[in-house]
Amino acid sequence: MSKSKGGVYERELLRLFFDNGFSGVRVAGSGASSMPSPDLVIGRAGEVLAFEVKSTVNDYVYISKAQLDNLLSFSHVFGAKPLVAVKFINRGWRFFEAPEIDSKNARFSFSDSSIFFENFLSKNLNYF
Amino acid sequence: MSKSKGGVYERELLRLFFDNGFSGVRVAGSGASSMPSPDLVIGRAGEVLAFEVKSTVNDYVYISKAQLDNLLSFSHVFGAKPLVAVKFINRGWRFFEAPEIDSKNARFSFSDSSIFFENFLSKNLNYF
Repeated sequence: MSKSKGGVYERELLRLFFDNGFSGVRVAGSGASSMPSPDLVIGRAGEVLAFEVKSTVNDYVYISKAQLDNLLSFSHVFGAKPLVAVKFINRGWRFFEAPEIDSKNARFSFSDSSIFFENFLSKNLNYF
Repeated sequence: MSKSKGGVYERELLRLFFDNGFSGVRVAGSGASSMPSPDLVIGRAGEVLAFEVKSTVNDYVYISKAQLDNLLSFSHVFGAKPLVAVKFINRGWRFFEAPEIDSKNARFSFSDSSIFFENFLSKNLNYF
């Protein structure tokens, strides 16, 4: 996926959170830096969510161990909740808590017990 | 100041915090978005600092009311501490708590009772 195409979905997700009362930023040079960083950092009232953002036309997407480690490392120091957001194109967003993995890749599937945006918001509103 | 030149000092400050045990990100498209956002978001253990970053060869720098309002608005929703970081070129970094202002610009001067990086860190380490 090209950088600009990835940016479209990052902006879409940032706008979705913004319209639901959060602040947030897209990260400049995410993945290019020697310092670990996510794609999006979203916050409200001091609670912080760090997102790796993916999109796919398939039923599933793979994320490398390196990318997950990077997200977990950033989130651990920052004090953020590490999350994977997947835009299943023409179907919608799903959110997954970023897992620690031993193997090479983690698979995130549309049909897994993932979280819809509305459920995610209400769950996290309780959490806040 | 050009965008790329601004980026140099944003990266320097991000690195400075990273080397002192913080996580952080530079913001993509800061100022270009319809959603308020700072230049840097820095965090540790759930405490968040939002920075407007400036540089100058002079003894002072002006920041517009619009930029400060933008920083304060972002920080209020996010739950971040709003700060202005000024790189006084050849002299070093100074930090200022972002003020609310009525007038057109705010002036931040090298000789004001601002905070040095080391003092800033130790002050904020106590704060954390």
